[in-house]
Amino acid sequence: MSTVDNLNNSNESSVSLREVGADDPIREQIRQVATAVREQTPLAQSFTNFVTINLVANAQLAAGGTAAMSFLPNDITSLAEQCGATYINVGTLLPFYRDALQEISEHLSRHQCQWVLDPVAAGIGVARTEILKGFKDYPPTIVRSNASEALALHDMWDLAEEDSSEEHQGPAGVESVDSVDQAIGAAKDIANYLAQHSPTHTAAVAVSGAVDLVTDGKRVFRLPGGSAMMTKITGAGCSLGGVTATYLAVADPLVAALSASMLYNVASQIAQRHSHGPGSFQVEFLDALWNVTPEEIAAAPLLLA
Amino acid sequence: MSTVDNLNNSNESSVSLREVGADDPIREQIRQVATAVREQTPLAQSFTNFVTINLVANAQLAAGGTAAMSFLPNDITSLAEQCGATYINVGTLLPFYRDALQEISEHLSRHQCQWVLDPVAAGIGVARTEILKGFKDYPPTIVRSNASEALALHDMWDLAEEDSSEEHQGPAGVESVDSVDQAIGAAKDIANYLAQHSPTHTAAVAVSGAVDLVTDGKRVFRLPGGSAMMTKITGAGCSLGGVTATYLAVADPLVAALSASMLYNVASQIAQRHSHGPGSFQVEFLDALWNVTPEEIAAAPLLLA
Amino acid sequence: MSTVDNLNNSNESSVSLREVGADDPIREQIRQVATAVREQTPLAQSFTNFVTINLVANAQLAAGGTAAMSFLPNDITSLAEQCGATYINVGTLLPFYRDALQEISEHLSRHQCQWVLDPVAAGIGVARTEILKGFKDYPPTIVRSNASEALALHDMWDLAEEDSSEEHQGPAGVESVDSVDQAIGAAKDIANYLAQHSPTHTAAVAVSGAVDLVTDGKRVFRLPGGSAMMTKITGAGCSLGGVTATYLAVADPLVAALSASMLYNVASQIAQRHSHGPGSFQVEFLDALWNVTPEEIAAAPLLLA
Repeated sequence: MSTVDNLNNSNESSVSLREVGADDPIREQIRQVATAVREQTPLAQSFTNFVTINLVANAQLAAGGTAAMSFLPNDITSLAEQCGATYINVGTLLPFYRDALQEISEHLSRHQCQWVLDPVAAGIGVARTEILKGFKDYPPTIVRSNASEALALHDMWDLAEEDSSEEHQGPAGVESVDSVDQAIGAAKDIANYLAQHSPTHTAAVAVSGAVDLVTDGKRVFRLPGGSAMMTKITGAGCSLGGVTATYLAVADPLVAALSASMLYNVASQIAQRHSHGPGSFQVEFLDALWNVTPEEIAAAPLLLA
Repeated sequence: MSTVDNLNNSNESSVSLREVGADDPIREQIRQVATAVREQTPLAQSFTNFVTINLVANAQLAAGGTAAMSFLPNDITSLAEQCGATYINVGTLLPFYRDALQEISEHLSRHQCQWVLDPVAAGIGVARTEILKGFKDYPPTIVRSNASEALALHDMWDLAEEDSSEEHQGPAGVESVDSVDQAIGAAKDIANYLAQHSPTHTAAVAVSGAVDLVTDGKRVFRLPGGSAMMTKITGAGCSLGGVTATYLAVADPLVAALSASMLYNVASQIAQRHSHGPGSFQVEFLDALWNVTPEEIAAAPLLLA
Repeated sequence: MSTVDNLNNSNESSVSLREVGADDPIREQIRQVATAVREQTPLAQSFTNFVTINLVANAQLAAGGTAAMSFLPNDITSLAEQCGATYINVGTLLPFYRDALQEISEHLSRHQCQWVLDPVAAGIGVARTEILKGFKDYPPTIVRSNASEALALHDMWDLAEEDSSEEHQGPAGVESVDSVDQAIGAAKDIANYLAQHSPTHTAAVAVSGAVDLVTDGKRVFRLPGGSAMMTKITGAGCSLGGVTATYLAVADPLVAALSASMLYNVASQIAQRHSHGPGSFQVEFLDALWNVTPEEIAAAPLLLA
């Protein structure tokens, strides 16, 4: 858990950061959106991996939304317009997903349906690469990933400026081997690309790490807090993607990405205090997602570069 | 949680209901069946969705049974006669399920194997509709669903009388938008249809809601109790379908459906008292499924229309 | 939970057993390996069933490793050499698995990658039998199973000596109907067969039961302890297979199989003491996997025939 000081002083970060004030309008927007999720129980549907599909649904319910899961294009397209947002996670692929996900992403784009992409394990396997490259033509509204995945997606979509000096180590399984700071440029490039293709001309990228990053392509927010125990349960990132879709159902992309990540940071800190290992941590985390108030979410640590 | 009074007085229900007495033979049957499950640890196999497959298995084990899960027709048919019952849930379909489920349902019917259907999200997607319509020719012994799904299945199977005035709003995701009372006629029609095709000429339909409904086509029971937290975890209904199959392995359809639903109502009330959110609720619920006694199950609130 | 005495005196076992001493070198090896897992967080990838895939990943993380899950041959082969070990579990098969698992097992063998097989439900269904028979040509490094599954695999691979008098009852779902003692000969035969084909000429078989068995084909260890509650949650065996792969990433097969099983026995005893049913048992079990020390693992009950 970083503070402003140790973040600014760490090797990880050399950018100057300021705390977003309690009276900054973005905090009130976050509070209102968190309230709206509780009041409206918005439906977000998911096409997500088999490892963490249960946690994604339970996290969406605990955060105040409603969940529906499917792997058939016709199911997803049938519900797309009833859903406030759709979530796609490319974790555990089956052979038929390439065609299914192309059909789904094309439908979502054509019908101006907002969706969140979690490019899990981007860079591993030809099928995943082909699917992720295919999304360039029908892009999501929000990308939620770790640093290595953001860098890999940035490469796959050829978004690098020619003078880019960013280098990364490539994927090593599903864990990030790159730091969030290494992915700042990639995250901004991806967010700007998404915004160009978004029906509302707005988009966001959220990169999870010890200190999370959220950007709409212009402003870059950093979110300290959270708990290292989130890396000791499977599905912390996947379920954040699902909850981001729940929030996107009632908010613009930047505020949705910020609110969901701030909820996760507050809830995981509470869970860490009340747990004795990863089993009780997950139980306490779901309880905290349910009990945290909109005011607590809006007051979470938030820095602006 | 409804009582007899507020159920009779609510807008939801206008039918006259009486509490089933402590000495009614059905309560003793329920007690015996709950005891038998504990003593015999019956095996019920499942073909169920990926979201809640783990909870289905854990709930069956906690209720006293044994679980086996598969998606291959040959696996299911190999085990069908060793199993006391089979459970089929159409939540997250894969492309090959249409042929697989037709083969399975046909085998189960021909070999007079009892099975429980959960028509999750009935009405959404062409593949699901085709599968559910196909079950009309090889029907289950018990249908366990929410009100909207019961109404959708009733439509798909063309069971409505011509003078039927029932109307419903159609599906909205996996949550019911119709009340249990709206589904009374549909539930009775389905139960009667199932009974006509059942090897034992008996069948049941269980419709879950704030006050559950269970019918064999003649008698209509209402089951108040339970906990609203059951709607804040994923798989409450799916796992009830699985546990209903566990009970069906040792009981007739009506008593199986009643016993499983009463167990769920008792256990979820206990879980609500001991939990602080959906995470601890699910943990306490599994503990309660394990600890509730046959006597407590048989004494749960039970009304007869 | 058996002691040396009641194991030796039980009907189940007629072999003479001695406790492995506190100063036996194998206990120091186990302690070092348990320490290495904590320090190196090794990556083990899994191709495993849908019921318990979440618990497999969470158990690997709680035990100190890192997890990655996939069902595509190209994903698995891409990561195989980055992974210390691969885990394959044949629980819930899909139609495309036969070709996928043949391709994967062939790749792992050719590239001398170590892997753990859990032959769940061996003997049920033609597809599973065909897959398991196919592994004879490209065998794993460790087999982790229950007694019935070990006996079924022994049959499928035609490893029985002609004068073998072992008989077993065949599969009955996913639970073992045979005792661990009945599988001693089969376990040794399988371990010797695996060792002949192993790049390191070493292998192991772990048979879980009331008293576990672990053998490298020469020595036969018995591991009393554990908790009967492990049979009341789904995935105890599956996740032990995954954690065995985590340990195999940093240890030779015998020590990996012993360490993982001893960790499970210690953790499940702790969980039983702190829980009130299968829900809290699973939570406490994951916490205990995380909190148990290398010294406690190395000191767990361990007998040698």
